[in-house]
Amino acid sequence: MTTTTKRLSWLPFLTEDIPAEYTSSAQIARFELNQAMNKLAADKKVELNVLPVQSDDYTIEQQGDTLCITAGEPGILYGAYALMMNLAAGRPLPEGSQQPRYALRMLNCWDNADGSIERGYSGRSLFFEGGKFDYDPKRMRQLGRLLASVGLNVMCINNVNVRYPADQLIESWLPELAELAAIYRPFGVKLMVSIDYSAPMRHGIPTADPLDEQVQAWWKQQAAKVYEAVPDLAGFLVKADSEHRPGPFTYGRNHAEGANMLARALKPFGGKLVWRCFVYNCQQDWRDRKTDRPMAAYEHYAYLDGQFEDNVILQVKNGPFDFQVREPVSPLLFAMPKTDLAIEFQLAQEYTGQQIDIFTMAPMWKEVYDDMGADKVMSIAAVTNFGRDENYTGHPFAAANLFGYGLFAWNPELPPEAIVRMWVCLTYAMDQLSQDALVDLLMGSRRTYEKYTAPLGLGWMVSPNHHYGPSPSGYEYQAWGTYHKASRDAVGIDRTASGTGYLMQYPERFQQLYGTPESCPDVLKLFFHRLRYDYVMADGRTLIQRIYDDHFEGLEETRAMAETLKALPLPEADKAEALERMERQLVNAREWCDIINNFFYGYSGVEDAHGRKIY
Amino acid sequence: MTTTTKRLSWLPFLTEDIPAEYTSSAQIARFELNQAMNKLAADKKVELNVLPVQSDDYTIEQQGDTLCITAGEPGILYGAYALMMNLAAGRPLPEGSQQPRYALRMLNCWDNADGSIERGYSGRSLFFEGGKFDYDPKRMRQLGRLLASVGLNVMCINNVNVRYPADQLIESWLPELAELAAIYRPFGVKLMVSIDYSAPMRHGIPTADPLDEQVQAWWKQQAAKVYEAVPDLAGFLVKADSEHRPGPFTYGRNHAEGANMLARALKPFGGKLVWRCFVYNCQQDWRDRKTDRPMAAYEHYAYLDGQFEDNVILQVKNGPFDFQVREPVSPLLFAMPKTDLAIEFQLAQEYTGQQIDIFTMAPMWKEVYDDMGADKVMSIAAVTNFGRDENYTGHPFAAANLFGYGLFAWNPELPPEAIVRMWVCLTYAMDQLSQDALVDLLMGSRRTYEKYTAPLGLGWMVSPNHHYGPSPSGYEYQAWGTYHKASRDAVGIDRTASGTGYLMQYPERFQQLYGTPESCPDVLKLFFHRLRYDYVMADGRTLIQRIYDDHFEGLEETRAMAETLKALPLPEADKAEALERMERQLVNAREWCDIINNFFYGYSGVEDAHGRKIY
Repeated sequence: MTTTTKRLSWLPFLTEDIPAEYTSSAQIARFELNQAMNKLAADKKVELNVLPVQSDDYTIEQQGDTLCITAGEPGILYGAYALMMNLAAGRPLPEGSQQPRYALRMLNCWDNADGSIERGYSGRSLFFEGGKFDYDPKRMRQLGRLLASVGLNVMCINNVNVRYPADQLIESWLPELAELAAIYRPFGVKLMVSIDYSAPMRHGIPTADPLDEQVQAWWKQQAAKVYEAVPDLAGFLVKADSEHRPGPFTYGRNHAEGANMLARALKPFGGKLVWRCFVYNCQQDWRDRKTDRPMAAYEHYAYLDGQFEDNVILQVKNGPFDFQVREPVSPLLFAMPKTDLAIEFQLAQEYTGQQIDIFTMAPMWKEVYDDMGADKVMSIAAVTNFGRDENYTGHPFAAANLFGYGLFAWNPELPPEAIVRMWVCLTYAMDQLSQDALVDLLMGSRRTYEKYTAPLGLGWMVSPNHHYGPSPSGYEYQAWGTYHKASRDAVGIDRTASGTGYLMQYPERFQQLYGTPESCPDVLKLFFHRLRYDYVMADGRTLIQRIYDDHFEGLEETRAMAETLKALPLPEADKAEALERMERQLVNAREWCDIINNFFYGYSGVEDAHGRKIY
Repeated sequence: MTTTTKRLSWLPFLTEDIPAEYTSSAQIARFELNQAMNKLAADKKVELNVLPVQSDDYTIEQQGDTLCITAGEPGILYGAYALMMNLAAGRPLPEGSQQPRYALRMLNCWDNADGSIERGYSGRSLFFEGGKFDYDPKRMRQLGRLLASVGLNVMCINNVNVRYPADQLIESWLPELAELAAIYRPFGVKLMVSIDYSAPMRHGIPTADPLDEQVQAWWKQQAAKVYEAVPDLAGFLVKADSEHRPGPFTYGRNHAEGANMLARALKPFGGKLVWRCFVYNCQQDWRDRKTDRPMAAYEHYAYLDGQFEDNVILQVKNGPFDFQVREPVSPLLFAMPKTDLAIEFQLAQEYTGQQIDIFTMAPMWKEVYDDMGADKVMSIAAVTNFGRDENYTGHPFAAANLFGYGLFAWNPELPPEAIVRMWVCLTYAMDQLSQDALVDLLMGSRRTYEKYTAPLGLGWMVSPNHHYGPSPSGYEYQAWGTYHKASRDAVGIDRTASGTGYLMQYPERFQQLYGTPESCPDVLKLFFHRLRYDYVMADGRTLIQRIYDDHFEGLEETRAMAETLKALPLPEADKAEALERMERQLVNAREWCDIINNFFYGYSGVEDAHGRKIY
């Protein structure tokens, strides 16, 4: 528990722990610059011009050998890290005033009080163990450094599924919460907590109805207590009426009524109420072909646009399902112009290889933003991928997702390759050819993973529950609303107007784009359409042949990745870690390839055009 | 924990708990007769003629109003229960000397020291809780009464998967083991314990190699200690080299070498070494079509016939897989004429409805014995179905399996209907029509369950892990060797000489019977053959139509069972319990019916000939 990492991913030039006594961003900025500058640019001097304002913005100016950072707090720290990282990467310093695209750049930790992490693949919780706070302050400051270096500024520390005793975070654990908040404060990171919607019922109130005055009074009083302990708490995060969590539906109230009640309690203190829009029927009968899970969020929220308090943020997953390898952008993001929205990504690789398989996300985020437009949301959030593992993210390359998310949240216009290359440059000292090879490997990793898993936007062919490895029909008869309906002739669900009608939730241009199998991009064809195996794609291949080809390619590409990896001049610890995981990725890719091909061969009876082995 | 059941299944006339101070079978026999006779036959007197021998045999003679039971111990108790039960059921008393077909009539409890029961569906363990012995002596005597009343005489109290601290049963828990043995002794029930093959390695010995002298010496010494504490312990039960359990294979030794080493340690004390033959490759690659799991037991054991010590009993599951609804009899049972074998059944309804669905087993045991012959085995064993639930077996009707198993173990010639009717007669006071209806319901329950689950001997379409409800392809790509290989044209695995060759493990008459799809009984057709959906059965139906028909029939029959159940005049507690479970059985039967039909419709594309709804 007391080990700190020897080598800190993209900040290898910071080797000294940040002392506990520094309590301002400027102090930390000076400490970091002091230890780094003689390694990075011994000939240069850095001056800090700290403005007496709270602001993320910063400016870096060069005058001769002196670099001057002008900023308030925590901007001064962002400026210092930007300066060091650009120097370390041999990049030009940012010119002019820098400011983040979004004021709230949020991380959601799914850490449980018992020390486990829901969908965590990097060891146990950094914050909790044994039903209470239990952390290493050194690692807290280390994590603060990592987050500040990429400009992330809100961290919700506990799982959205709030189970006893995590509900105590806003009750009996206030002194401990205040202590942790104080550690992260100089790093510009504000804490947030997930709350249990039914909390008042554990305090003698017979209901959690948001229109009940006792309930309202309890939350107001509780919010006051919480803000007395932690005056700059970012707010509350809520998963309500979702996957058996309590919520306003129990009392016949809609989610505006539900969220606004909490928002009003937080408003006097400047707190935000972040409300997740992950509501769907998780007890669907597989026989029911009318209910279509991707339609659920839009149906529950779109009609409420304009009815939310101004400190409510609706947090919408990037796709309409749940962090599958490939989904179209959520239609809800276009449907609420009068509401503050946050988009939610998932750095934890729940469905995307669990930090065993390499899956670099920056290209995916870019695609989502290309479809959505950065102005559709006012905030950005991501489920974290870090835990108590020495390197924080399990797979050393998974750090590229944490790093990249920070840069992307600050500036979503950054090209994905620039993000990935920056991480490689900072993390590994290697020759240009190796660097190019690693950047290519990471940039291609998502497409490779996509090829060997469920085909063409189908999703949900993962093993139920743990979500690693293939089980092509594992969800086919379950209650989660995730069906592919494969049969001997065809596969997929028609989600156009002639099918479930999901497509109609989109603006016109998407209806055009996705509306016919011909216009729909290949990678989403089976998300929107039910297609016969002999359907002919634009390139002349049949659907079934395309499935075979993608899977064989995905496996071959993984094997090529393994070869590349072997040849890379990585530090010993990272190399051992990456190679051991690559062994498992190879097994996984082969399982996926062979099982998906066997599965569709069993249904279609069509041989591979190239005579490759289908089991 | 201290509640005893108010109404004891097939012994409702025994309402007084057996006092702790009775320490002989004859004392208990007198106590039971004293409380029962004035209810059952107030005009009759019972005399006990207790012979100074240890024997199961008994004789009941009638002279006027006096009934005389002549027997040693524990036979005197068997005679007393037989007398009471036959009187209670209005049956004639058994004539002449009665003796059991098998000397060892064993129960295997899969109870863990933590209080859980592997594959237990009747509450937690009656023996253990919290990593130690924890039982209610009253319930122990109650269970002793139940077992003695049906002549069961060996009970292995802990799970064959021995996990810490259950390994302490033969080490530091000897005083507690002796205490429990003393409770069961007057009931004629000897305890047995499952042991961990690698135990010596926790005592400074670097190996568990059965040919190692230190290992041999450790077991001899340990056996001596155990028998000092419990001189009449029945012996040890071992699951070795099976599903990741340790065993002799680790040291390149075969299972005769492995078993004999332990048997020699037990022999001086008259103990038996019961060795389970449940050995197979549980890490099979689904691509491997040569390995065929049902062949494994025969391959591992048949060649060792004649090589076992005379106190070794090889315990062979009734079928070659693992307690599926329908399997052919295990070929190993014909292959070891020079070895003592026990057949193993499973009363716990792991794959057969989990004591939610009704599944009465007596007809199944009879079928197995019709195929095998009672002389092929020298002992009989069954995994128990009881736990801490007030009625011991969860579903009140599941008691018919515990009851029936005892009667069957004593006399496998008894017709299944006689067994079932006896249980009904004893358990419920009801009119003849109701009694007939319940007997019919129970007698048909296995066939009904079979119809709505995996078709025609296919098996393994249950949900992985917990084994309740359908998941037609849940095991298709797993490592357990349990595949159906359904495709668009056909389903099943050819296990004849032209296929995996499994059939060749059988004696000639089975090879004839199962050898062609035409000669093979319908209910096992898909166990032995891969058949096209358009294969025409003897009655003119296609295979696919037969699958549909069976499933619709199974569902209809379940609905009819539910109607029958509603009308039965059962005691209130049993009726509530049975009806609540029937609600769940109806849901389960519908899921099975619809999912299996949907699954095969998806592959075959063939409509139901009768136009019924296939989803």
